[in-house]
Amino acid sequence: MPLLFHNRLSRLRSALRQARASALLISHRPNIFYLSGFTGDNALLVAGGGRPILFTDPRFDTQAAEECRGSHSRILITRKPLPQAAGEYLARLPRSATTMFEEDRLTVAQLRAARTPARGGCRWKPVQGLVEALREVKDAEELARMRAAARIASQVMVRAIKRAHAGIRETDLAAEIEFQMRKHGAEGPSFETIVASGHRAALPHGRASSKRLKEKDLVVLDLGVILRGYCSDLTRTIHIGRASSEVRRWYQVVLEAQTAARKAVRAGTPASNVDEAVRSVLRREGLERYFIHSTGHGLGIEVHERPSLRLRQSTALQAGSVVTIEPGVYFPGRGGIRIEDDVLVLPGGSETLTSAPRELIEV
Amino acid sequence: MPLLFHNRLSRLRSALRQARASALLISHRPNIFYLSGFTGDNALLVAGGGRPILFTDPRFDTQAAEECRGSHSRILITRKPLPQAAGEYLARLPRSATTMFEEDRLTVAQLRAARTPARGGCRWKPVQGLVEALREVKDAEELARMRAAARIASQVMVRAIKRAHAGIRETDLAAEIEFQMRKHGAEGPSFETIVASGHRAALPHGRASSKRLKEKDLVVLDLGVILRGYCSDLTRTIHIGRASSEVRRWYQVVLEAQTAARKAVRAGTPASNVDEAVRSVLRREGLERYFIHSTGHGLGIEVHERPSLRLRQSTALQAGSVVTIEPGVYFPGRGGIRIEDDVLVLPGGSETLTSAPRELIEV
Repeated sequence: MPLLFHNRLSRLRSALRQARASALLISHRPNIFYLSGFTGDNALLVAGGGRPILFTDPRFDTQAAEECRGSHSRILITRKPLPQAAGEYLARLPRSATTMFEEDRLTVAQLRAARTPARGGCRWKPVQGLVEALREVKDAEELARMRAAARIASQVMVRAIKRAHAGIRETDLAAEIEFQMRKHGAEGPSFETIVASGHRAALPHGRASSKRLKEKDLVVLDLGVILRGYCSDLTRTIHIGRASSEVRRWYQVVLEAQTAARKAVRAGTPASNVDEAVRSVLRREGLERYFIHSTGHGLGIEVHERPSLRLRQSTALQAGSVVTIEPGVYFPGRGGIRIEDDVLVLPGGSETLTSAPRELIEV
Repeated sequence: MPLLFHNRLSRLRSALRQARASALLISHRPNIFYLSGFTGDNALLVAGGGRPILFTDPRFDTQAAEECRGSHSRILITRKPLPQAAGEYLARLPRSATTMFEEDRLTVAQLRAARTPARGGCRWKPVQGLVEALREVKDAEELARMRAAARIASQVMVRAIKRAHAGIRETDLAAEIEFQMRKHGAEGPSFETIVASGHRAALPHGRASSKRLKEKDLVVLDLGVILRGYCSDLTRTIHIGRASSEVRRWYQVVLEAQTAARKAVRAGTPASNVDEAVRSVLRREGLERYFIHSTGHGLGIEVHERPSLRLRQSTALQAGSVVTIEPGVYFPGRGGIRIEDDVLVLPGGSETLTSAPRELIEV
């Protein structure tokens, strides 16, 4: 474990050197967790040349000591507002120093509080995505956790499909799913479990409602777990009773699109190519206009992170990234179909981490 | 329902007039929900003289139409970054207009994006807590939801206490608790359920771990649900097996402190008086130094909101607020005891919304 933090911190230091900055004020919790191991909900991390400093309050005294063991971070417990405490620390840096801050993660009020003590002192420079870019490539410990998180999601999905039947409420199925996540050792769901049946399956983000599953419903099950800080994200669509030939055709097209996209994943490929692999199948079958979101997104400490797999996203996939591949079609009033897996990007190919059956299941 | 939004919006308009601002850019999700009913995770709301405008993206098209029905909000679906879209709208305001923004909820990058289109146009003024202050006093619909959320938490607590026994893992008990929340109709937990036993009960925020409950453990159970957007928050401490006379004494002192604090709650009382009611009991019994957090906090759409019940907090409690009363004592290495209820502030007194038994339970 210490080795991993060491590696993360040295990659951060290179990034800071390249940006000609002496320190980074980190306010985004997933970034703080990545660099220090700390999960408490009140923290700031200052990272630069030496050991990172974790600022938190007395409630997290014991927790910080436990979680940051081996992370090289120095823990600074304070009763002051954290931006002020970090600002006072940074005010002691030489006048020529530049401190970067995460402009998309720090509020206007926090920046003001952090700058006040150093008035006229160090320079402040906004930055976006610096730590997020490091997180895009997972290390061995992260991949071990993500494999395990994907395995639990797959097991829970198989069980949920067995439990689905006409008459059960969406919310009761969601409750059962989240219960099984905990029983399998997960910390909890990585997002609000989606059970969307019938016309509700046409909503890409349809939460579980009090609606009961019924004959001829398509049911979208979208679930994921957090395990030791890392997420999985898995979707299957099942059918209650025998599906019509039209529904079967839709399903086969989405499955073909998803398979094509998974095959297109490899290190060096532009993200948009994977999206295009989905679109070309859907286009050929006249279904592209029912695909109203992007093909996928990175996965890790957050359930949505870099990279984004969408149109015109030309950045190349990197070996060691984990992405979702989740094409779907949505017919307002009728229902929807989505199939999603988590895929590890590798040189020359990929590995699918999730494993629940992909063929259409009629229950 | 429409009436309630109408009332909330007219209180907001008065607050804006008082601050001499023509519009408020609202970025905090609970504030957006309060004023528009929308729960999606990508939205900005601009409220001012006329109908509020909700900016969101195409994924939330159907959801926004459903959730904002009767809220008077106009929905504006855009593919642009929302701060830019809101900024372009605000740029058309007269030059003399002042737009306020939530400086503790808006990131530096969002403010920059929102200001860009209106360069040289309207003036921007930071504000904190404007909508949060309105939310401190609950209306009838909110109180109905909070009563129901408190009732479910109480039912789930009674059941959890029955399920607790030597040998069960903390995480399994937490999973059972969260399953029951869903079965009782809640959307989910309002925070990560705490099951902290034995020495782990000395951590005020101890999550459930793989530790098993065992004889002579104090077990802190801290749980709450979200129901139709509103939170409850309830803590009981039980003992596995017969408690020693020392543990019983500690428990009685905490219970006496909690009862005294609930009795001290009434509209017009300074928040610090309620905190002092706890402290004076603990002090008399020599336990004040083991009380390492504040007495309570407001509760509503968020599980922590205004007001804060702590030392030197002189602001008066308002009729219609709901607050937690949760004194506790923590003995590192030995365990802890906390008793928490949700209390509605009324003129001349209060009403406790949660109802699980408060006497020491030995299981």
